[in-house]
Amino acid sequence: MITAPSQISSVNIEYYQVPLAEVLSDAKHGDHTHFEIIVCRIMSSDGVEGVGYTYTGGKGGRAIYTLLNDEIRPHLIGLNCADIDAIWHKLQWDFHYVGRGGILSFAISAVDIALWDIKCKRLGQPLWQVAGGASNRTNCYAGGIDLNFSEQKLLNNIQGYLDRGFEAVKIKVGKEDYREDVARVRAVRALIGNDRTFMVDANYSMSIDEAIRFGHAIEDQAITWFEEPTIPDDYQGYGKIADAISIPLAMGENLHIIHEFIYAIEQAKLGYLQPDASNIGGITGWLKVAEMAKQANIPVCSHGMHELHVSLMASQPHAGYLEVHSFPIDQYTKSPLRLEQGKACAPDTPGTGVDFDPVLLSPHLITQS
Amino acid sequence: MITAPSQISSVNIEYYQVPLAEVLSDAKHGDHTHFEIIVCRIMSSDGVEGVGYTYTGGKGGRAIYTLLNDEIRPHLIGLNCADIDAIWHKLQWDFHYVGRGGILSFAISAVDIALWDIKCKRLGQPLWQVAGGASNRTNCYAGGIDLNFSEQKLLNNIQGYLDRGFEAVKIKVGKEDYREDVARVRAVRALIGNDRTFMVDANYSMSIDEAIRFGHAIEDQAITWFEEPTIPDDYQGYGKIADAISIPLAMGENLHIIHEFIYAIEQAKLGYLQPDASNIGGITGWLKVAEMAKQANIPVCSHGMHELHVSLMASQPHAGYLEVHSFPIDQYTKSPLRLEQGKACAPDTPGTGVDFDPVLLSPHLITQS
Ligand SMILES: [Mg+2]
Ligand SMILES: [Mg+2]
Repeated sequence: MITAPSQISSVNIEYYQVPLAEVLSDAKHGDHTHFEIIVCRIMSSDGVEGVGYTYTGGKGGRAIYTLLNDEIRPHLIGLNCADIDAIWHKLQWDFHYVGRGGILSFAISAVDIALWDIKCKRLGQPLWQVAGGASNRTNCYAGGIDLNFSEQKLLNNIQGYLDRGFEAVKIKVGKEDYREDVARVRAVRALIGNDRTFMVDANYSMSIDEAIRFGHAIEDQAITWFEEPTIPDDYQGYGKIADAISIPLAMGENLHIIHEFIYAIEQAKLGYLQPDASNIGGITGWLKVAEMAKQANIPVCSHGMHELHVSLMASQPHAGYLEVHSFPIDQYTKSPLRLEQGKACAPDTPGTGVDFDPVLLSPHLITQS
Repeated sequence: MITAPSQISSVNIEYYQVPLAEVLSDAKHGDHTHFEIIVCRIMSSDGVEGVGYTYTGGKGGRAIYTLLNDEIRPHLIGLNCADIDAIWHKLQWDFHYVGRGGILSFAISAVDIALWDIKCKRLGQPLWQVAGGASNRTNCYAGGIDLNFSEQKLLNNIQGYLDRGFEAVKIKVGKEDYREDVARVRAVRALIGNDRTFMVDANYSMSIDEAIRFGHAIEDQAITWFEEPTIPDDYQGYGKIADAISIPLAMGENLHIIHEFIYAIEQAKLGYLQPDASNIGGITGWLKVAEMAKQANIPVCSHGMHELHVSLMASQPHAGYLEVHSFPIDQYTKSPLRLEQGKACAPDTPGTGVDFDPVLLSPHLITQS
C-alpha cells in the first residue's frame, strides 16, 4: 500500500464515437445509432494512471470533451490525487455558474472516476472493496432499448438475454397506442415465465394520467418497477402516480445534482433510485446518493456503464438491480461483464477494473489531447 | 411587415473573452478578470440576420461554443425561423440527456435570442413592443461586484453610480466576518441617503442561520431585497429565511430550468424573481418565467446582459428593477444603455436592439466558425 502524497501531473482526454450494431430506440430520445465515450486519463506524480470516463447516447460529447480538455484540465494540475472529495467540490464551485448539473456533471464524473481508479490502485484493492465491500457480485438485469423492435424481434431479443444467463429483463414502453405496450408486456411475461424479474421504462414519455392508466393495465404482470413514467422534474407528479398504482416507480438517470435526489426521495415516492456515476459526479456522487437511499430505506440501482457500476452495486448492502445497458461499453474493455448464475461479477483487480482495450476502442477515436 | 415563411439558412458562432477594467470579486465566484460572450448569428433564407448571444463570468464559454458550433448547428438548418417555441422545445428534447439546464441552457439561450431578433426585425418592431409592450423604459439599479473593494473604494464606486444617474444600487456581501458587511451596508446607506433603493447580494455564501443573523443586522437599513442568501437549490431554506427576516428575498440567476422556477415560486417565498435570458433559454424562457411571476404576484427582475433585458423588463407590467450589471456588454454594442431620470431606456430600433460593434468587440475574438 502506497501512502506518500502524489499530485496530478497530467490530464489527457479522448473522445470516441462508437457505432451500435443496430439502431436502438426509446420513447423520448428517438433513434440511437452510436454512443459517445469521453475518457479522462489522469497521471499521478508517482506514476499511477487513473482512467475515468463518461458517456452519452450520441449527443453532447464534443462539449464534454471541450469542457474537460480546455477548461477543467488546468484546474487540476498539481492537486493531491487523494483529495477526491475536495476536488469534487472545487470543480462544482469553480464552474458553478455554468453548472448545477448538465454537461458539467458529466465532465466532473470522468475526473472523479479517474481519481477513484488511482485511489484503488494505490490501495491495491478492487473498487467493490474500497467503495463498501458488501459483496463482489450483484443482482442485474438486461436493459433493452427496443421500442422500435417488432413484437417478434422484441421477443427474440429477450430470448437472447435469457440465453446469456439473465434472470431479469427490462423493456421500453411508450408506444403511441398504450395498448400496444400492454400487449408487448404480456408477450414478454409469457416468454420469460412467472419467476423472472421484469421492469418497464417509459423514458418520461407519459403524462401523469397516461402513466396511471398504463400502470393499471399491467398491474397483473408482476412488474418490479415502472421507470421514468413522466418527466423527471415533476417529483410530486411521481408521487401521484405512486399513490395510484401498485407498481413501484424508479428514476435517477436524468438527475445530475445531489439536491435533485433529495427532492426525489422526499416527494417522488420511488421504489428504486437509479443514479448514474457517469452524470451524477462520478463515484463520489453515486455513493452520496447510495447513502441517501440507505437512509430512506430505498434500494439503490444504476443506469448505464455496467462495467463500472457492477463494482459499486456489489459494494452496497442495499443494492437493487444493476442495469446491464444496451450500450456495450464493456465490450471495449479488457474484461467484459461476466455473469454467474444470473449475478454480475465485479472485477477483482486493483482499481475500477475498467481498462479500455486500445485495439478495440481506438478505431472509434474522434479527437484527443 | 414581412410574412412569408423563411428558413434558417446558416448559423455562425463567435467566442470572445473580454477583459474587465479591473478585477471584480464576489463571495462565491472569487475574482473575475474577464467575461465571455458567445454570439450566435442566424441568417434566414430571406436575408434577415438574427443576433443572439450568451455570456459567462469567465468559465465554460468554450464548451458553450462547441455545443453550439459542433452539435446544435446541424439541428437548426432548414427550420422555419418563426417556429421559435417549437425550436426551443426541440433543442431541449434533442439534447435532454446532457441537459436539464447547465451549459445546454446557455446554448439554447443564444439560439433563441437570435430567432427573436429575426422575429422583431421582420415585424419591424422593437423587442419591448413585441415582448409585451407595457412601456419602453424600466426601473433599474447598478449592480456592483465589489466584495474585494475597500470600504473607501466601495463608496467611491457607489458615488460613481450616483454621478451616472442611478437611483438604485446593489452591493455584494459575504465577508468572512459578517459585521464587516453590516458596516459596509450602513456606510453605503449613509452615502446614498434614505430615498434611494438599495439591495444586497450574498451569492449563496451563507448558511440559513448566517443569512438570518445578517438579515436581522441590516433590517433597519431599508433594504429592498437580499439576493441569493444561500444555495439556490434549497428552496425550503429560502422559505425559512423569508419567514425569519423582514427583508424580501430574490434569486433566479442560477436557475436554468423552468421547473426550478416553479419550485422557487412555490417554496422559496421570494419577493423578486431574477431570471436571466442568457441562461434560462433566451427570451422564450425569460417570458415563461415572467408569466409565472405575474400569476404568483411577484415582480420580475433580471440578471446580467442589461442591453437585452432592458427591453424585456420594459415590456412587462409587473417589472421590478433591471440589473445594470458590472459586465459592461453594452459597451461593445452600437447603443450602450441609456438612463433618463434614473430609468433605463429600451432601444426603439426593430429587433432586440443589441447590435455588437465589430470595431470594439473583434479585438477580443478567440475563435469563430
Ligand atoms: Mg431508463
Ligand atoms: Mg446576483
